[in-house]
Amino acid sequence: MSDSSVFLVPGFLGNGMAAGIKVNGKKDLSLIFSTVPAKAAGVFTTNAFKAAPVLLDMERVGKGTAQAIVTNSGNANAATGDEGYGNAREMARAAAAELGIGEDLVLVGSTGVIGQPLPMGRILSAMGSLVSGLKPEGLADAEEAIMTTDRYPKMGLRKCVAGGREVTLFGMAKGAGMIEPDMATLLSYVLTDADVDGETMKRVFREAVARSFNAISVDGCMSTNDTVLFLANGTAGNRPLKAGSAGFGAFRGALFEIMEDLARSIVRDGEGATKVLDIRVEGARSKKEARTVAYAVARSNLVKAAFYGKDANWGRIISAAGSVGVPIDPADVHVSMDGVPIFAGGAGTAQDEGVLREIMERPEISVLVRLGTGRGAFRVFASDLTHDYVSINAHYRT
Amino acid sequence: MSDSSVFLVPGFLGNGMAAGIKVNGKKDLSLIFSTVPAKAAGVFTTNAFKAAPVLLDMERVGKGTAQAIVTNSGNANAATGDEGYGNAREMARAAAAELGIGEDLVLVGSTGVIGQPLPMGRILSAMGSLVSGLKPEGLADAEEAIMTTDRYPKMGLRKCVAGGREVTLFGMAKGAGMIEPDMATLLSYVLTDADVDGETMKRVFREAVARSFNAISVDGCMSTNDTVLFLANGTAGNRPLKAGSAGFGAFRGALFEIMEDLARSIVRDGEGATKVLDIRVEGARSKKEARTVAYAVARSNLVKAAFYGKDANWGRIISAAGSVGVPIDPADVHVSMDGVPIFAGGAGTAQDEGVLREIMERPEISVLVRLGTGRGAFRVFASDLTHDYVSINAHYRT
Repeated sequence: MSDSSVFLVPGFLGNGMAAGIKVNGKKDLSLIFSTVPAKAAGVFTTNAFKAAPVLLDMERVGKGTAQAIVTNSGNANAATGDEGYGNAREMARAAAAELGIGEDLVLVGSTGVIGQPLPMGRILSAMGSLVSGLKPEGLADAEEAIMTTDRYPKMGLRKCVAGGREVTLFGMAKGAGMIEPDMATLLSYVLTDADVDGETMKRVFREAVARSFNAISVDGCMSTNDTVLFLANGTAGNRPLKAGSAGFGAFRGALFEIMEDLARSIVRDGEGATKVLDIRVEGARSKKEARTVAYAVARSNLVKAAFYGKDANWGRIISAAGSVGVPIDPADVHVSMDGVPIFAGGAGTAQDEGVLREIMERPEISVLVRLGTGRGAFRVFASDLTHDYVSINAHYRT
Repeated sequence: MSDSSVFLVPGFLGNGMAAGIKVNGKKDLSLIFSTVPAKAAGVFTTNAFKAAPVLLDMERVGKGTAQAIVTNSGNANAATGDEGYGNAREMARAAAAELGIGEDLVLVGSTGVIGQPLPMGRILSAMGSLVSGLKPEGLADAEEAIMTTDRYPKMGLRKCVAGGREVTLFGMAKGAGMIEPDMATLLSYVLTDADVDGETMKRVFREAVARSFNAISVDGCMSTNDTVLFLANGTAGNRPLKAGSAGFGAFRGALFEIMEDLARSIVRDGEGATKVLDIRVEGARSKKEARTVAYAVARSNLVKAAFYGKDANWGRIISAAGSVGVPIDPADVHVSMDGVPIFAGGAGTAQDEGVLREIMERPEISVLVRLGTGRGAFRVFASDLTHDYVSINAHYRT
């Protein structure tokens, strides 16, 4: 449904095609190419079982420069040992050869079933057409080819003036819900034609990830493949952006907006999700404690099932908040839903059940927990826990 | 189905009756009485939102002596503020008056809906019959009256020779699954006629709780009311038991057995559960790290849903194990199910799918994760995540 001509980033080309990795014949091989080497930054899963492409990208992003991202869906190339690592390198090498660039400039992504060898024959034989089909309006195809069971593509674009030029920022993502039969992955690639100072770029990207992909919870599970990459190729010709330089604030704001929108879109499209919960914890002694409490609520199966059942169950919210060792005095705690107080002074507040029932029908509901012990705050977007979640994740892999 | 004459503990009486707290007319008021004051120990929820009876019991158990436990089901007396605390005291006072003992010797338990005032009129007017109906074979009635939506009573009894006498140990429990519309609770009461040194009793009880109720996971949620109490009334006339005294090992072993059985029984009866997962982590650098990894696997919705779906999904097991910050080298990790290796050397092992399919049909499946970094070990019993779990917990409270 997305108009691909909207997603144009100067100096970037994209393509996506079906290479026969997915059994259903959908697009499964994706390429993003920058016409010039770009500055690169990345944030990766902290899982001890990192997939082969993650290990490869961590090395390559460390060098600070990249020019292409080749991604397959349908197979995560995870828990595949040395052979898997070799395959990830081989996939990059093949793309580099077709593109005529150094293989170290190619980053790799994989998402899908884990523990199966990549079908290298199919990937290698498709590489020629993948590269020859690159085009400026091909980023939407590149997105389509990284999707697994995402119900819709997730892309965003912003323009702003920074360093004396109009610059473009574009982001694409695939879902974090465990939507594949075996294992899902969050993949997100952010592209800009702006010239950004390398250290500044890393710092602002880490900030953006903390506010977006590290502030959502679909099922509390962290994949072996989660990868977020940022390429800045400088073709806009702006003065290099640094903290404090003209337009840096606008650039940073646009980056945050794109990535926060992508993250929420992933929650909305979470496996079997019917609701988005916007959980804010305020008045904690520190941001860290606020985050701990917010995630305790966001991850609680009881809270998530109650929202699915349209039950304004403040008992489960406070019980989750109180369960993680953060010192809390119940007498100081206030809880509200979409602005309606539901808990204060150590007990439930008198409620108009009609008002609460109406709130619980909404597709997006905000939960505010004020702890009353300080000024730390954190916000998490979470999905609910549904019958469909269980169905999707209980099925046998075949 | 339990033959109540089996559950006799010298010096203890029990009773349970319907006082009209539960809307369905089932037993909801329970009393355990020791004919003489007993040494008391307790372990309580660490939730910051502790229910009124928990706050009361923590004070009273601290004094080391108790003689009765009065418990209601159908209402948790949680998040009820000062009024709730007053009601818990009033409930104890009424029992003490009927029993003719000091009110400080009465402990209180509550389980059920949270945030509703206790129906004190019904509780107080039932207290006379509750006390007059006390009898040695009444412990099974006391158990029945603390159950909420538990599908069956959970009781165990062992006898052993210790300190020169035969002594009896008895334990009863109700489920930890969030089976009540609002909030469930683990309650367990352990009784013995043995004479045990006070400090020894506390220590061995904490050990037993760590091995039993603190080594299970139904849904990873901790209630506001979780309470485990231990009364030892010394009527067996044995020489007081201490570490090293004759028969102490047998006593300790019997205590562990009873409490571990109760804990597993709670998992088996977990909300909507169809399987019990016996998750062992070995070869960790410490017991603490083993526990962290074991609970990560036990709490993973993806792992739990996979077992429900009879999917031998080792990818989810290693991904959960790797997600909690414990340093792991995938190359050293071995995973097996019921003794069949499924992951080694950084990749899935060649599998006979028929063998795995047969294992996945079993109602109880062991998962062994060896990390290869040390000698720390921990074992957790967990339930699976099912459609029924979601149904049970999504329903509106009315």
